[in-house]
Order: sequence, then structure tokens, then C-alpha cells
Amino acid sequence: MSVTAAKGFQAAGIAAGIKANGNPDLALVVNSGPRRAAAGVFTSNRVKAAPVLWSEQVLKGGAVTAVVLNSGGANACTGPQGFQDTHATAERAAEVLGHSAGEIAVASTGLIGVLLPMDRLLPGIGQAAAELSEHGGEKAAIAIKTTDTVHKTAVAGGAGWTVGGMAKGAGMLAPGLATMLVVLTTDADLDTPTLDKALRDATRVTFDRADSDGCMSTNDTVLLLASGASGVVPGYDEFADAVRTVCADLARQLIGDAEGASKDIRIEVVNAASEDEAVDVGRTISRSNLLKCAIHGEDPNWGRVLSAIGTTSAAFEPDRLNVAINGVWVCRNGSVGDDRDLVDMRFREVVITADLAAGDASAVIWTNDLTADYVHENSAYSS
Amino acid sequence: MSVTAAKGFQAAGIAAGIKANGNPDLALVVNSGPRRAAAGVFTSNRVKAAPVLWSEQVLKGGAVTAVVLNSGGANACTGPQGFQDTHATAERAAEVLGHSAGEIAVASTGLIGVLLPMDRLLPGIGQAAAELSEHGGEKAAIAIKTTDTVHKTAVAGGAGWTVGGMAKGAGMLAPGLATMLVVLTTDADLDTPTLDKALRDATRVTFDRADSDGCMSTNDTVLLLASGASGVVPGYDEFADAVRTVCADLARQLIGDAEGASKDIRIEVVNAASEDEAVDVGRTISRSNLLKCAIHGEDPNWGRVLSAIGTTSAAFEPDRLNVAINGVWVCRNGSVGDDRDLVDMRFREVVITADLAAGDASAVIWTNDLTADYVHENSAYSS
Repeated sequence: MSVTAAKGFQAAGIAAGIKANGNPDLALVVNSGPRRAAAGVFTSNRVKAAPVLWSEQVLKGGAVTAVVLNSGGANACTGPQGFQDTHATAERAAEVLGHSAGEIAVASTGLIGVLLPMDRLLPGIGQAAAELSEHGGEKAAIAIKTTDTVHKTAVAGGAGWTVGGMAKGAGMLAPGLATMLVVLTTDADLDTPTLDKALRDATRVTFDRADSDGCMSTNDTVLLLASGASGVVPGYDEFADAVRTVCADLARQLIGDAEGASKDIRIEVVNAASEDEAVDVGRTISRSNLLKCAIHGEDPNWGRVLSAIGTTSAAFEPDRLNVAINGVWVCRNGSVGDDRDLVDMRFREVVITADLAAGDASAVIWTNDLTADYVHENSAYSS
Repeated sequence: MSVTAAKGFQAAGIAAGIKANGNPDLALVVNSGPRRAAAGVFTSNRVKAAPVLWSEQVLKGGAVTAVVLNSGGANACTGPQGFQDTHATAERAAEVLGHSAGEIAVASTGLIGVLLPMDRLLPGIGQAAAELSEHGGEKAAIAIKTTDTVHKTAVAGGAGWTVGGMAKGAGMLAPGLATMLVVLTTDADLDTPTLDKALRDATRVTFDRADSDGCMSTNDTVLLLASGASGVVPGYDEFADAVRTVCADLARQLIGDAEGASKDIRIEVVNAASEDEAVDVGRTISRSNLLKCAIHGEDPNWGRVLSAIGTTSAAFEPDRLNVAINGVWVCRNGSVGDDRDLVDMRFREVVITADLAAGDASAVIWTNDLTADYVHENSAYSS
């Protein structure tokens, strides 16, 4: 279903030869209208890849007719030549599709610090355009994979309208945003400001709260394109709910496919003084390598949760903290609680609940365990 | 040499039965004067172990006659009972040594959230006191080991006076301070304010700049005790230099013995706008799991250095950043620099130089690589 679930979109995914192993590496998503409204959210990393710098400019215009995405190279830290390559990519797509380059977004993922093989990428755009199809969403989702073991798609919607999307991302996943490329499409008949608000409302509580390894990417891009092809104008709440549902679904899939992970960890911070503090505490817990190793070993080592909480500036009293792991309150009032042997950690999902006893705000952060496989994937070869 | 290198100190290290495996687990360091001046620096974690809460109070008095240290249990997150246990430890040492409990510091290390076996610890204090010796420094250093593979000691000094020390710490090493217990002793004839200043000046640029795994402990304790037994009053600069030398030596040993590490990584941040920003950038680089995995794989993946720098708020322009790995400037002006194949990473020490081109301040942060052995050590059993 992916990006072609909504009416008015065509997509393709092909092997252009950017990846040495011959796997699919170039995707094209085209909005055939009648509307071409679009919103985007990008990495908050100050070191931004060339395609991010380019697409940020494109999105300022509020209209996107097509997105060119490549895996096999991030085109980050590639200097003026890298930016020229992104520009040339948009120009080639504009030429092939008969649109303005100023409405063509570009997204790249892969190794940082390497120039893209433009002699293969540019011809690939023509090839992808020739394969554009209303059923091409799956192929596009497959072409943007890097170390992902599966491609990720999701769909939601209402009466007569649909939101669909695809995502890639498996490592360098951290808030603001995770390392990922995401394209969402909808046939709802909505303008750019509405799309922008719905997208920001959704990413704030989904992708921004997935933190696999604390490492923020240079390339994160989340785009939402509206074709208006359904002719339906859903109410804001209903539409925002669908966008959030698709984002949450994709974010959950990203965590579930994180590099080397054997456990998905849901960190619930409750009774915080504010939502911001709940998020801060959740992220800090999610970044404790020691805790992530313990979870990998199915060890309910709650001391590592407390030592992480203690490094934050959130409101709490150490002797009022409570921590549950998979529902067993192993820490009560900052001290030894129920028997840790009662904690059953055999399943993939692990829930850590941190009760700050300081207010009534809460937040959920998703992360995963730290494993030898993660180390292997990120040390055995460049990525 | 350790804590008994300086005149006026006795020490012992014994197996009290706190550790299940029968290894040494209780150390005693006694200052026989004539002075009993002391300074201390403790973890900045807000979740503090009982012995930290106790010893912070003791140090406020500015005098320490003895330090009781145990491995085999952190006595952290153990509630009122844990604090009573620390108090009882000091009381027993006071009774055995004939001193006031208010001048006896206590330090503990090991698993968080478990009460200490006081039925074994308390008798151990009498046994350790019976074995006190002016040659007991090595045994004391051995008794405070947890996952350390070697014990750590260092010595420096001047004409007629000495500074010696011991340290433990192998995991949960992060600034402010690393997970460690450190006792430094000197026979220089100096008062508490001088010791305090020298200790803070030293830890700020040594232990506070060692970040093994980004995890801050609940138990970190660094003590500096002065006996005055040499009768020598060194100048401040000379003394501070010796304290810093011993701290730097011990900090380097901690990084060199970090859990599972195969590489020691020296991160030099140069041309920063301020020292604080240099430290911030260095720490951020040191906490990139992706970079630490790459270094483990001997991959000069400078893109992971840039993506880490980009998450900080330090002054820099992305297109003016330069990065060298082992002296090869693989990144110049934020883009591809010299050939990465020129980087030789076969040796244990790896030097990463990050040039922010934003000023003339600099700082060095030490960390190590992330390995499957680290994951194993921290997942296979509780620690």
C-alpha cells in the first residue's frame, strides 16, 4: 500500500547501481494532483546533508510534485559538489517529469562523506520514471532500505480518504528525528498549513520519541504530500489522528527493526511535573548503555534506571521514585521493592515504568536493547 | 605504592565475604597524622548512594581519619536501612580505631539496589584493622576492584613529600565523575582549603574528562587525605601539579581497563570558542555508540564524528569543520579530506582531533570503543 495507497500518487523503486550489491536503491514518488500541497520535517542536526538543505528550500514553497529518494549514499559532508549533485538530481527529475525542479524534493541515506555516483543515479531517474505506477508503493519502500531487514509501510484514513506512508531506518535512530526517510501521502483535499500542523503534531509524539541508539542523523526527512484526489476535506482532528496513526505505526516498525536489537523497550514516564520533563527522563533512560545491555540479558537491573534518572534535572525526590519492569514494582520509594525474580522478561517487548511522583504529566519513549549484533553491524563495515 | 606511598598512612585489604566468589572486598585506609585534613569530590548524580550521603557530611568537617571502602555492593537505592548500614560501618571503624565516627568516610561499589551483608562486613573491619600496614596500599587497591581486570595506583611528589593514590572503575564511567572510588593521600603539610582547591582543579581536567560509556554512577567518590607527616609545605602550584599528575595517571588507567574495550580513544577538540564548548563537543563525540563501534572496527568513519558534533550547540560552521584521525585530516571544511585509507588504526590508542575553527580553546576527553565484550559483561550478569 505504502505511498500509493492514497489516490493521485504514483511510485517506483529500481536498482540504479548506487549500491555495490545491486539491490534497489532509487525511489520516485510523484503527486499527480490536482493539489500539490506538502509539508516537511527535517533533522535538527546542524550538520545537514545536501538533500536536506535542498528539500528544506523546496518545502518553503509549500508545493512538492515529486520526491527522489536514494539509498546507498547519504550525500552528507560532501561540500559544494554534494549540493550540486542534489541540484542535478532535482533538475533531471524535473526534466523527465515535465515539472519545475523547485517543486522536487530529494532525500538520501547511506554512508556519510562519500559523493554519490551521479553517472548511475541520473540515468536511474529516467528508468524509475518509466516504471511509475499506482501500485509502485511497495517497490519504492524497498528501494530506500539500508540496513533495514524489512521495508516499512502503513496506512490509515477515513470515509473516502487515505493516508499512506513508507519509512526506512534501522540505525542512527534518535530524536529530532530518528535516522530515517519517511514519505507520507494523502488524497485528502487539504492545504499546506493544515498538512504542516498535522505533520508536526504527529512527529512530536512518534518519531521524536523513538531513540534507538542516541545518534542523530544528518539526513532525517519526513514529508507529507497531499494530492486532493479524493475531493474530501476531513476535519482536522480526524486527519491529524490518521497522520499520527501512520507515524506511530512506522516509528514502531523502525524500533522493531533496529540494528541488532533483540528487545523493544517501551519506557513510560509517569507522574512527571511536565511533559517535557517526562520526555527528558525517558530519553535519558533510553540512552543508558548499561541498562540496554541489562535488558538484553533479561536482567531487571532497576538500579541502572535510577542512576539514569539521577542525571536529569527533572523534578523528583530520590526517595520517592518508583520503577516497574513488566508490571513488577522492583523499586519502591527509591529503594528495593518487589522481588525482581517475579519479572518475566522472556518476550521481545519490555515495559519500563518510571514513576517520578512529581506531577501528573507523562510520556512514552521507545528504544531497544544494546547487543553484540549492534556492535558487529556498526564495526564490521562502514555504514 | 598506592595510598601508603605517603608517610603517615596505613592501609589493608581483605576478603570479608561480601563478594560471593571470596575475592578481597574490604579496604581500610588510616591517616595517623599529625594532620587529618581532607577534601572530597562526589558524584553529581542526584540519586546518591548511602555512603556518598554519609561521606559528604563527614567531609564538611574537613577532617578524615580513616576511609572504609567495600566492593561487592554499592549500597545505593537501599533506603533508610542502607544509610543505617553505612552509619554502622563508620561506628564500627570508630570503635576499632578509637576515633570519632564523624571523621570516618565510607565508600561502596558494586550492584545497586541490594543491601550489604553487614554480618560479614562489620567483622571484616576488625580484621582489616588488625592487618593495617604502611605497606598495605596495594592490598587496599586490590580489595576495591569490581570488574576491573587490574588494580590501579599512581604516585607523584616533590622534595620530601609525596602524593599517592588508588582507584577502581571499569564501567559506568562518565563525567561528573566516572564510576569510581579513588583515595589519594599525601604527607604534605597542607590544610583542608588547599587540599580542596587542588583536588577540584585536578578532577575537573582528569576524571571529569573520562567518559567510558556515558553512564554516571551513584557512588563516585574521590578523597584526598593529608597527614602532614613529611613536615613539608609545598607551594600550591607544585602540589596541585602532583595531584593532577596522579589523577591523570589513574584516569588514564581507568579508561585503559574499561569494560570490554579494545581501543583507548583520545578526543582532542581544538579551536573551540570556549573550554566549556570544547568539553561539550568532546563528550558528545565520546558518547556516539556508532562512532565507538566504528573505531572498534578500525574504520575511520569521520561522518559519525561530524554527525555527533552537529547535535551540540557549540559555536562552529558546518563547512569549516576539520577532523583528523590518527593525524590524517580525513575531513576538511566539513567535506571529504585526505584519503581515509591513509589512517593506520592498528594500535590500541586512537586520536580523534576535531577542529571547530571557532576560537582558540581546547580540551581532551578520553573514552574507549564499544565492543561485543562490553555488551557481554553488562548483560550476562548483574553488576
